[in-house]
Amino acid sequence: MVERIEGGITAPAGFTAAGVACGIKASGLDLALLVATPAARAAGIFTTNLAVAAPVVVTREHLARSGATTRAVVVNSGCANACTGPSGLDVARAMADDTALAVGCPPEQVLVSSTGVIGAPLDPAKIKAGVLSATQTLGRDQHTAAAEAIMTTDPWSKETAVRADTPAGSFRVGGMAKGAGMIEPNMATMLAFLTTDAEISPGGLHRALREVADPTFNAITVDGETSTNDMVLLLAGGSSGVQIDEGLYPHFVEALHAVCHELALAIVRGGEGASKLVSIHVAGAGSVDEARQAAKAMANSPLVKTAVHGEDPNWGRLVAVAGRAGVAFEPTRARVFVGPVELFGHETVYADREPEAAAHLKQDEVSLIVDLGTGGTASFTAWTCDFSAEYVRINADYRT
Amino acid sequence: MVERIEGGITAPAGFTAAGVACGIKASGLDLALLVATPAARAAGIFTTNLAVAAPVVVTREHLARSGATTRAVVVNSGCANACTGPSGLDVARAMADDTALAVGCPPEQVLVSSTGVIGAPLDPAKIKAGVLSATQTLGRDQHTAAAEAIMTTDPWSKETAVRADTPAGSFRVGGMAKGAGMIEPNMATMLAFLTTDAEISPGGLHRALREVADPTFNAITVDGETSTNDMVLLLAGGSSGVQIDEGLYPHFVEALHAVCHELALAIVRGGEGASKLVSIHVAGAGSVDEARQAAKAMANSPLVKTAVHGEDPNWGRLVAVAGRAGVAFEPTRARVFVGPVELFGHETVYADREPEAAAHLKQDEVSLIVDLGTGGTASFTAWTCDFSAEYVRINADYRT
Repeated sequence: MVERIEGGITAPAGFTAAGVACGIKASGLDLALLVATPAARAAGIFTTNLAVAAPVVVTREHLARSGATTRAVVVNSGCANACTGPSGLDVARAMADDTALAVGCPPEQVLVSSTGVIGAPLDPAKIKAGVLSATQTLGRDQHTAAAEAIMTTDPWSKETAVRADTPAGSFRVGGMAKGAGMIEPNMATMLAFLTTDAEISPGGLHRALREVADPTFNAITVDGETSTNDMVLLLAGGSSGVQIDEGLYPHFVEALHAVCHELALAIVRGGEGASKLVSIHVAGAGSVDEARQAAKAMANSPLVKTAVHGEDPNWGRLVAVAGRAGVAFEPTRARVFVGPVELFGHETVYADREPEAAAHLKQDEVSLIVDLGTGGTASFTAWTCDFSAEYVRINADYRT
Repeated sequence: MVERIEGGITAPAGFTAAGVACGIKASGLDLALLVATPAARAAGIFTTNLAVAAPVVVTREHLARSGATTRAVVVNSGCANACTGPSGLDVARAMADDTALAVGCPPEQVLVSSTGVIGAPLDPAKIKAGVLSATQTLGRDQHTAAAEAIMTTDPWSKETAVRADTPAGSFRVGGMAKGAGMIEPNMATMLAFLTTDAEISPGGLHRALREVADPTFNAITVDGETSTNDMVLLLAGGSSGVQIDEGLYPHFVEALHAVCHELALAIVRGGEGASKLVSIHVAGAGSVDEARQAAKAMANSPLVKTAVHGEDPNWGRLVAVAGRAGVAFEPTRARVFVGPVELFGHETVYADREPEAAAHLKQDEVSLIVDLGTGGTASFTAWTCDFSAEYVRINADYRT
């Protein structure tokens, strides 16, 4: 029903993009522009950090003021425009004004986003030049340039798209994203931008984004840090003519999930110093919230992440995290699997199976499963990467 | 009033100790015995992990059954006796029985403690031989051997003692400890054992231990992990004849604090891969609980810890943690100091002061200060160490 297609963020009809260099970063593309024609409905989810960057403030204002109607999204990398006080807000507003002028729409129909160094001022002249240059290169074939322009230390750009074929016709969902957490010294942000040519009500759009973000973007972690600039935006233009009613809503969620799942996992794969993608499935929990809390605690544990890096099936570390995660946990009935191999269950240790578990950990994608033993049936899967000496090197030595 | 003295855990009159090798670890001392003559009052605080190791279960039982009257504490390293099921409990009980026989007291007057590999069985025959050997070498001069016998990957043993001179006479407090958090692959535990020859009521003893543990042991972190075996025991023998009444209670707390503070900081200094002791002071909080929560979040942040390792004054990382710590925080009034140098305050960035801040970070002991800007007056100081590539190496490659 959902098929992967080429085209990234501009795969859905009605969207063009550009990625240009305007000198905010020392080298490389650093400004992306996404334009919706006609205007799209937009939904957004934002950082929960109390230190909110200026572009997050402005984008929220503009969504409210425009009734969530959006013509353009402009994003820069290399400078987060965070902790920059009132002058940072002025720059974020100027960024929207310049884009509105170039695109021909009211400023509140422009959403802005930034990623990069915290506390450094963002130069409005560079942004203005970048917007001008971007409007001149806008096209449906520029999706990869746009995905590259939002990168900071990401090892590769991240974009994907799908086509969903339904009884009422086909629609597309596309997206691009950049690095998870605060994965760079003084750099910030997980950003993701999503488009669709389906037509959907504002309420449905919000509901779908929240529903899909929970098991995708909200289920990943590189370092447990919540940045000042996190932002996920979803724009629905309607150009496919496919109207998402109650009957088609599950198709829409399926397509959106496919895109968000792929982008979220790509972010983790490209985490700083990462060599393995790690899924952590917690079962036997009293509630999904408790399962999520335990899975996230394991996914952020430096001892779990270093053990995976060392390809060492240290199941005791998972038990120890389960016991301190603040959720119901019954050690006498708990079970721990590394890949398909049960190493601990019902107070029994299967030490002879460790070689088989170690073999599983030699793969690029590994799976850890913990049953909390409460008798509950709720579960949650979190994704993380391993924790390498390279991570420390990147984060300790960046500015020296 | 409080003077540092030699003698470690046996500095207080009425205590003897021993540290012997009984073959649980591949090499080195691995069993410590502490004997109180006459019996001492005991108070304990224990891991909050729901996966509780067998020795923690047995020690709690024995404190309850004996009315907190204790003749001996026996501790092994090299095996945590955790996740070992009913047979692990049998071994922990046998450990107390053997010691009771050797010392000549009821089993419930013996407290037991273990540290080391999780999930591995503890050999009761080795423990029996170790206890026999330990009783033959017991002495007031064996405190360093005892401190060495409880080490796992600690780079050095940790012991200290003080004498408190009061109008009612002098008493002593001594102690020994081992590594913080789960600082070793499959190894567990922060352990601390404290003695005093002051005489104090059971209620006073508990109250003092809890009061002092909060700003000392409970204020440190190496990796944010709560082990299955954590235990702090305080034994008060009374041999000094100094009775701790309401008037002397502050003197007792002062002396106990001096010992616990030194041991707690020694644990952090010896954290895996650590090269720096880092104090993180959070001020301007609405409550001490909020200040503690924010300080601990910063102390556990891999981005803060790697920045300190790189001697890079990345104050933006501290702001970002403050914003996600789940406490009241006012970014427009917040201030961040690296050592004595204010780098950010009231939305102003002092970029020109970064070299001065970087110079402070080159020291072995560094200080980070964050004012949350809420207008509140509560504060808390947490201690941690830097996060080095060596940490990852130790934890990833230990068993390979």
